Formats: sequence, C-alpha cells, structure tokens
Amino acid sequence: MDGSKNIRVGDFKVTDSFWGRYQSLVRDVVIPYQYEILNDNVPGVEKSHAIENFKIAAGDTEGEFYGMVFQDSDVAKWIEAAAYSLIATPDKQLEKTVDDVIDIIDRAALKDGYLNTYFTVKEPEHRWQNLQECHELYCAGHMIEAAVAYYEATGKDKLLNVMKKMSDLICDTFGEGRKRGIPGHPEIELALMRLYHLTDNEKYRDMAKYFVDERGREPNFFKEEREKRGWEHFHMNPEDREYSQNHKPVREQDKAAGHAVRAVYLYTGMADVAGSTDDKELLKVCDTLFDNIANKQMYITGGIGSTHHGEAFTVDYDLPNDTIYAETCAAIGLIFFADKMLSYIPDGKYGDVMERALYNNVLAGMELDGKRFFYVNPLEVNPGISGVLGNYRHVLPQRPGWFGCACCPPNEARLLSSLGKYVYHIKNTTVYANLFISGEAVVRELGGMKIVSETGYPVSGDVKYTFTNVPGTEITFAVRIPEFSKDNYRIEIGSGENNDFKVKIDKGYYYITGNFREKMTVTVKLDVSPKKVYANTAVRYDEGCAAITRGPLVYCIEGVDNGELIQSLRIKRNGNITEKPYDESLLNGIVVLEAEGYKMEGSSSLYSYERPRAVPCTLKAVPYYTWGNRGLSQMRVWINEE
Amino acid sequence: MDGSKNIRVGDFKVTDSFWGRYQSLVRDVVIPYQYEILNDNVPGVEKSHAIENFKIAAGDTEGEFYGMVFQDSDVAKWIEAAAYSLIATPDKQLEKTVDDVIDIIDRAALKDGYLNTYFTVKEPEHRWQNLQECHELYCAGHMIEAAVAYYEATGKDKLLNVMKKMSDLICDTFGEGRKRGIPGHPEIELALMRLYHLTDNEKYRDMAKYFVDERGREPNFFKEEREKRGWEHFHMNPEDREYSQNHKPVREQDKAAGHAVRAVYLYTGMADVAGSTDDKELLKVCDTLFDNIANKQMYITGGIGSTHHGEAFTVDYDLPNDTIYAETCAAIGLIFFADKMLSYIPDGKYGDVMERALYNNVLAGMELDGKRFFYVNPLEVNPGISGVLGNYRHVLPQRPGWFGCACCPPNEARLLSSLGKYVYHIKNTTVYANLFISGEAVVRELGGMKIVSETGYPVSGDVKYTFTNVPGTEITFAVRIPEFSKDNYRIEIGSGENNDFKVKIDKGYYYITGNFREKMTVTVKLDVSPKKVYANTAVRYDEGCAAITRGPLVYCIEGVDNGELIQSLRIKRNGNITEKPYDESLLNGIVVLEAEGYKMEGSSSLYSYERPRAVPCTLKAVPYYTWGNRGLSQMRVWINEE
Repeated sequence: MDGSKNIRVGDFKVTDSFWGRYQSLVRDVVIPYQYEILNDNVPGVEKSHAIENFKIAAGDTEGEFYGMVFQDSDVAKWIEAAAYSLIATPDKQLEKTVDDVIDIIDRAALKDGYLNTYFTVKEPEHRWQNLQECHELYCAGHMIEAAVAYYEATGKDKLLNVMKKMSDLICDTFGEGRKRGIPGHPEIELALMRLYHLTDNEKYRDMAKYFVDERGREPNFFKEEREKRGWEHFHMNPEDREYSQNHKPVREQDKAAGHAVRAVYLYTGMADVAGSTDDKELLKVCDTLFDNIANKQMYITGGIGSTHHGEAFTVDYDLPNDTIYAETCAAIGLIFFADKMLSYIPDGKYGDVMERALYNNVLAGMELDGKRFFYVNPLEVNPGISGVLGNYRHVLPQRPGWFGCACCPPNEARLLSSLGKYVYHIKNTTVYANLFISGEAVVRELGGMKIVSETGYPVSGDVKYTFTNVPGTEITFAVRIPEFSKDNYRIEIGSGENNDFKVKIDKGYYYITGNFREKMTVTVKLDVSPKKVYANTAVRYDEGCAAITRGPLVYCIEGVDNGELIQSLRIKRNGNITEKPYDESLLNGIVVLEAEGYKMEGSSSLYSYERPRAVPCTLKAVPYYTWGNRGLSQMRVWINEE
Repeated sequence: MDGSKNIRVGDFKVTDSFWGRYQSLVRDVVIPYQYEILNDNVPGVEKSHAIENFKIAAGDTEGEFYGMVFQDSDVAKWIEAAAYSLIATPDKQLEKTVDDVIDIIDRAALKDGYLNTYFTVKEPEHRWQNLQECHELYCAGHMIEAAVAYYEATGKDKLLNVMKKMSDLICDTFGEGRKRGIPGHPEIELALMRLYHLTDNEKYRDMAKYFVDERGREPNFFKEEREKRGWEHFHMNPEDREYSQNHKPVREQDKAAGHAVRAVYLYTGMADVAGSTDDKELLKVCDTLFDNIANKQMYITGGIGSTHHGEAFTVDYDLPNDTIYAETCAAIGLIFFADKMLSYIPDGKYGDVMERALYNNVLAGMELDGKRFFYVNPLEVNPGISGVLGNYRHVLPQRPGWFGCACCPPNEARLLSSLGKYVYHIKNTTVYANLFISGEAVVRELGGMKIVSETGYPVSGDVKYTFTNVPGTEITFAVRIPEFSKDNYRIEIGSGENNDFKVKIDKGYYYITGNFREKMTVTVKLDVSPKKVYANTAVRYDEGCAAITRGPLVYCIEGVDNGELIQSLRIKRNGNITEKPYDESLLNGIVVLEAEGYKMEGSSSLYSYERPRAVPCTLKAVPYYTWGNRGLSQMRVWINEE
C-alpha cells in the first residue's frame, strides 16, 4: 500500500507567530540547555552523565557508567531535536557541536556495530540478555531516528552509518532462525521503519515486522529470557504482560493497554509496518486500537494513560482528572501514531486527535519559558494535595526542572522542532492539510509547487492558502475540517471562480480537485467560537460537569484568576461564554474566556441539610496549555454546571 | 474531674430487634467462627495460628511462631467479645472454651509477667527493643481489655491477674527514671486506663499518662531506639513521625493526623487520662482533635482515614469516595473516642458522631450474615475498577472472608456485643441517654432504678422510656437530641403532668429534672424523615452532589436497584423523596427511599458538544449499611443533583 508522505521538515518553513515562538524557544533555550544538562554543566540539577557515558564507552575518558539503563536515548533525542532545528535555522556552531557528539558516538560503537554505553561500559557480558528491562533496542531506535534526522538535515552520514551497522547487527541477531526477541519498550519498530523509508532496504522493514508480530506470542518471551539469564535489572515481572503489550499477539489486541508510551510507540511502528506491507488485517487492528483510545481512553486534552501505576491505560472510560498520569511523552507518541495512521487512511479523526494532543497536553508539558517541564499533565490540581499526598504525589502542581529520567523534555523538543512535517501529507497528486500553521511549503512531488499558509490559528479560525508554481495539471487539495467546526465552516476557492473545481467532503476532509491557477487562494473559515463540551456519561469523574473549549483549545480555570476553592465554582447551564479581546501581554498572547457562573456558598459545617447558595459570578478561563505559568494555585478543566 | 460512667454491659439488657439481631449474630456466628479461625480449623482461610502461638509459648506444643507480630491481639479481641456475649447470654460451653484459652495464656506468660508470644517464641533477646514496629504494648493493651471484660463478665480473675502482672512489668520498665518508650501503635494507654478504673490503682493511670505525654517529644524516640538496636521488622521509617502521631508533643497537636486507627486509639486514651487527672489543657486538646475530625476529616458515614497510604488522615476536606480507606477499626475507634469525650464533656456532638459511625461505617463493615467483613468502607464502588486497578485496589466491592491481618472482624464483634454500655452514661444523679436502643437498664448509681426503653429506631423516631424503682429524690434524665432532628422533635413527659419538671436544652441534650414518679414515661419523638445532605464546598469530591439520609442512616444507590452507569443518575434538585413502607423481607428489614431523579443520556462519543438529556426516573436508595449484600454492582452515596 502506498501511503501518503509527510512533507519534509525542511520543505515547510514555519512563519507562524504561535509556533514560531515555540520553535525559537526550542532552538534558543531548550536545545542549548539540554546540551549543558547532558554534559553535567548545570549546577543543582540531577546529574545526567549521558555524554560522559559515551566518552567512557569510546575510551576517551575513564570512569563508570552513570544513569538509567536508557540514558543514551537522551543524547539521541537531543541530536534529533538539534537536527530539525538546523533545518529551520542553519547554525554552524550547533552543527559543529552535534558533529563532535557524533564523533564520540562513532568511537563508542563497537567493531561489530553494537552501540549501547550501559552494556559496553558496565555489563558487556550481558548484551541482549534482558530485552524486557534493559532498553538496548529502545536506545538503538532513538539513535536511528537521530541518525535519519541528522542525515536529512545536513546530508552527513556518519551517524547514519553507525546506526545502519547497529541495525544490521540487530537484523543479524534477531528473527526467525536467529535469536528470539522483542523489546520491552517498543521504539525500534518505528525507527527501523524510518530507516527503511530512507534506505528502501527491506530487511529493516522485515525486522520491524518481526518485532511487531512476535509480541504477545507464546511462550512468554520475557519469562523465557529471564529464566535463561538469572539476573534482573528493575525487578519487572514478566507475567505482567499487559504492561508491555505482550499479553496477546498484536493482531488479537483490540484495546489500548499497558504502559501508555510503550503502547503508542508500538502502534506507530505497527501502523507503518501494516501500511508498508499492505497488511490490511494489521492496519485494521491499528485502527481499532486508535478508536479505542480516541473514543474511550483519552482525556479531552489528548492525554493518555490514566494511572501512574505502570504509567498505563486502565479500562474504558476510567479517566480520573486528579490522579491521572497523561505523560507528555505519551501524548507525543499519540501524535506519532495518529500521523502514521493518516499516512495510510486519510480520515480526519486522526488529525483531530493529533491536534487535540498537540494544542493541549503536549504544549502544557512545557513552561512558557521553555525551562521547565511536566511529565504528568493533570486536568485538576489542588495545591497541598497534588504532588504531596499518596495517590496524588506524582501529580505536580508546578513544572519541575530537569529530571533524572529525562524522557519528556527532549521528546517535546524534537516534536516541536519538527512540527512542520505534520502540516501536510502528500500522496500522488493530493496534498492533505492537517494542521493549520502559517508557513511556506514546497511540494517536491508536485514539481515544487509552493503553498503559503497564513493564519492566526488557534486564535483565529481563518486560514488562507496561496498556491504558486502550480503544476498545470489536475491536483487535489484536501483540508481537514476539525470536528469542532464540522457543522459550521466556509471554504472559498479563488475569487468566486469555483465552478472549475470538483469539491467533496469525505471522512473529515474537504477535497478540492482541479487545475490550480497560479497565485490561486483557498480560504478556510473555521468556527473557533467558545463551546461547552460534555463527557460521555460513562466517565464518572466528569459527571455533572462541562469543559470549555475554543477551537482546538481546551480551557481551564485557575485559582490565580478565580480565587479560592475553585471546585465550588459552577458554570451556568444556559449561560453565555464571552471572548475577551486577544491579549498579547497575557501568557504570551491568549484569548481569555469569561463564562457566566456561580460560586456555591454554603454552611461552614462539614455536612449540612441546607443546599449551598449559588451566588452569580464570572468564571475566567484560560487555555489549558498555559496553566501553571503564574505561580501555585488550583486548576481544573471540568467544571460543575448549575 | 469526675466523669460520667458508661452503664455496665451487664446492666443494659438489649431487647431491641435491630440490635438484638446483630448481637445474636455475633454470639451465634461471629464468635464461634472466629474461634475456629484462631484454631486454624477453617479450610481455605488464611492461617491464623494465634492460639497455637500461645500454646507454643506455654510449652504445650513445639513449633514456630506464625503470623503478624500482633497476632496475639486477635485472641484478646475474641476473648473480649466473648466476655460481653456471656454477660448478655450465659453459655457454659463458651465460658469453658474461654477458660481453656485463658489457661493457655496464663501458662504462656513468663515468670516476670511478660506476655507476648512473638518475642517469647521467636526473638526473646529483642524484647522491648522495637516499640515502633513490634506491637508488644499494643498486644498487652488488648489483652488487658479482654481481662477486664472477662472479669466483669464472670468475676473470674485469672486473666486479670496475668495482665496486672504484665502491666506491673510495663510500669516497672518504662517511665521517668526508667526506660524511655512510647508504643508505635497506641492502645496500651486506653487499656491501662480501663485497668485503673477497675482497680483504682493510680500507677496504671500514671503509666498511661507517661505514654501520652512522651509521644512527640524530642529526641525522636523511634529513631533513638532504632539506632540502638540495629535490626528492623517492617522497615518503618522513624522519620515518618506523623504516622504514629509522634510529630509533636500531643498537647501541641490540633489536627488529627497519621494512621487513623492509631490516632483515635491514642485520643481515646488521652481523653481518659485528661479527664481522670483533671487535666483541662489536655482535654481541650482532645476536643480540638475531635472537632477537627468531625468538622473537617470525617466521611458522612463516620468513616475516617481518607487514604490507604499509611491508612491515614490526610488534610482537611480531602475526602475522596472511591480511593478512601475508612477502615472499620478506625470508625470503631472513633466511637471509643467520642464515648470517652462524652464521659467528661456532656455534649451531643460526641453522641452524634458515635451514632453516625455506628449506624453507617461500622455496620457496613459486616455482611448481614455476619460471615464476611470490610476493612475499607468506600462511599463509591465501581466493579472492574474498585478492588482491581492501582489506586482502587484496596477498595473491595464485596466483603472478603477472613484476612491474614484480622483486626476488623473481632473489633466489630467486641463493639457490637458490648453495645449496651454506650446507651447511657451516668454521672451523680443524671442519666444521659445517648443511643436509642430498646432495652432494660438498671442504674445501680440511682438505687437500681430501672429504665425500659422501647423504640423501633432507626426505622421509627419514637422512643418511649419507662422508669420504675425510682429513687424518690430529684434526678435528671438527659436525652440527646440528634443533630438531624434538632429543629423538629417532641418530648412528652408522663401524661401531661409536666409542670413538676424543670426542662432545659443544653449542648444537644434535653434535660428533664425532678422527682420521677414510678412507671413514669418520657416519650421522645424524633424526626427521621428523609433529608438531603450537602457537603461543605471545600470537599471537592462531593461538589454538585447530595446524599440522602433518614434519621441516623445514610443511604446509597446500588446498581442492583438502579441499573447500569449509576453515576449518570441525578437526584432532582427540588424533587420529593418518598418512604416506602418498611419491608421486613428486604435486607433484614429496611425502609426503601425513592427519590425523583433523572438518568442522563448522552452521545455515545467520548466528548460531545451536546449536553446529555435528563430523562426522568426514580432512584431507589437503601441504607448504606446494607450495601454489597446482593451481589456485585456499583454503589454510591453522593449523587449529582439536576
């Protein structure tokens, strides 16, 4: 099956003020800061040692490995983020820095291609013995992604060659007739698929397919390998098979289960294997899993993984707001998964989820100044409880700095710096517009046609596309109509000369087909007026509540705007929600929403026979992605109605 | 300070149909069953070994200690329950059985008085070295309570003498000028006070006072003892001082904190020490702690301890319904504490809490057939989640059988079999009526005056007291007017000849003073009509919800009566709640309540811009104490309003 392809990061120049700011932040703040962290140059922050580990493995210095068994992946994600950033903004000094790091990595790789500083430095005799716990394939996957990205960014192939050799070693080691194995933490699958798409070498695709298909088969591989080796790393229980999506063969899975990041990384690889091998059965499985997430296990913010016990999915409709996990990495993985599904099935539902996760959970994961990050993204926090007490201890009410386990910040960086590639997909003569971001795209597949997009999205719902260098033959431009606007939008093609174009609506896309004229415009007017959202009545945590949204943005109320005891605020059932004028000075520029509401004021006793009085008031709501940027206070997304 | 005294268990003969059934159940089912458990005669149930441990310590058999370090206390609580049961219903065979157990205990005691099978059998060299973790004083406390109860029941003093000797050893071991120490789990304090009240030997009171006052002092005793001994039992952290109420001197404590059972056992002992030593400062502390519980940290069911992390209190108004702990033992301890406060401060608030805990949390702790027990008493369960997932794993949706840690069932048994003593308190010429239970009381302090109480409480709100063998001098009868009826009740004294009596209302009691005539009656008519209750707006878990109550009973809705997705049911804001006729065939006899309500029916999608429709329906509510007796289904106390 031919899938659509993402536009290359380098072929979409972001000119967007909203996203441009984030990309600058990643370039100017996050990437340099992370580099200092990786080199242990930031006092008061937990030691990383990640670059030092590579130096030791390379023989450049002496010392002991330090950090998590997957410490290498931090370096990989940093290189990947830096690569994307270099595409957008060439920077000789950064490129030199990356080259130097790659030189160390090159020296750290062993003769046979093996690359992993933990095992090279610390336990060389244990290589490939503990795939459940020890992340060798996971680290390899991230470094493959970094290698592909850096090659695409710079044309330099040193790291690519290192990772091809490591991939060849993996291919020679695992599979039918070779060693049995599946990774405890999926990632290698989607990475090998990236390498396959770059190199067209089918052995990488076949290796990914093996890892996908072997998962969940009997006998339980993780138990088998543990019995063989007689040592442990994290004391993980191989019988907890769901945690690693190893509870049944993937083709029999129909509910998203286990560790949420592992799940969506796996599903991303699965979807790519399915599409690339024209495996309709497997693609249907991916679609079923996607629907299960989107329709039964996803927060309104696009967050997934509702419990910190195993950082995992639980059961359908179990979406607690205050004991949530909703890891930033999981929402990022959900974007990868949705994007990959979109490659093989052009359905707006994937783009809707991608957008939901991006504008809410993912953006909320980073402080507006780019210096602090959330792993857990709650929909309700209560200072004094959140981050402190038992079930809430992991739910921090303010973003902390760098962690010992630093998965989320670099993941955020690589997503934001590569955001351009999610804007368009291209298949044959069709361009799919998925995200609404101002920028200049060059569509190589259509003879270098340029598409300039201009929008104030998400503040405004208007997007204007201008096409130049058009191919002169019939093409199709397909615009995703977001679910929030599906009953109220307008498309203007050119200046009223629409009759030449065939248009149709199909699965969330508005298709415009015809001979595009030079400098022709397509204007999309989406309805981003404020709306209340209600959860399915099976979600018991949200009963009686509404959430406020505006376009793709979920809003929340914070104590800093609404005073004490924000749980006692109610949104008026048939009340108005008013948009305040765009305030560029507030939270880097937002539209504040004011909702008619009430504050419930009751007896001071704990229980009372008297109903609290509903005192009219105005609720002030701000976009969820901006929460926690103005000091410690309560926050909630779901608000009781009155 | 002279406190009021509870009427003796033997001086109140329960004739009540509601409570009589529970007492028969304890006598006929629970006590015999528990005895079989203690002797390991019940197949399929976790081994107790508790009696066997005593036999081994006594040298009767050979073997190893087995069970928890506090396994002895199970035997003590069983003896105490059996003692109360023997008072109500003499039973030669049961008495013989208890005597035989006591003979073993007597032989298990060492020459110097020391009694504890764990240390005697397993670690004799470690005696008194680990008060934080090892429950020696806790076990001693329970056995003292058993000894006092059995002496009061039978006049037999063998166990009493054993425990006097053990108490003497404790007094000789700990205190100023002797070894420093406080128990990790309070219980010895209240037990020594019971021994003091029985024997009038002030050294027991002084020892209790020492344990109370030493708690929370610097340096941290638990840290000190751990540094000395160099071994551990449970790996408890001595720095987690709040867990054992050891975070500051008790006189500086103003919020109930830490492990809830430990807390209320401590406060019970503290209150008795305070009252008995006329220590107004300490009594004020107890009152402050009581108010903190009752007004800020107690579930509507009387449950306390809102987290399973440390089975503990958390912070004010933090009362989650579905991740709750609310251990049965904690609610029982709260009754002890309230009852003890009532001895020194006649204020109806204590009786209100006692009643709330008794009729709701405590009764719900036992299956109606007396064979299965809850440790955790949730206000919301959801099958498939409760008892299964992460934060809900401890919240079982159905009562299990006997546990390895068997604290709650025998605690339930001893409370129910001694319930008579909580009905009246007597001080000088005043009789305080606290609980409304049909029975025949003999008031020794008033020349053997008899009070016959007749009531259908809690089904009916009418209570008729008939006084005979009256003393011929002025007495006072003080009836607690429960909070639920304080604005609507009637008291009828005699047959209209009320003018001879002085009456007054003070702190929740209706005082009737005068010369009571032979066969005079006092009739109390309380309003037990159904009422909705609202939680303080600071309790965020109950926002938007109401609970249904009737008299002292909290009601709940169950899936078995109300179908699927009971979270989508709403109680109509100004709707009626109707009482169905008393149904003696349902759940051992209850009044079903029917409330006008709605079922919310919405879109099948996870999130929708359309508000779910409110479809009128009738909610069927049953008393909370009967929940979970009809198979597995959802249950909730707090119901959203519409």
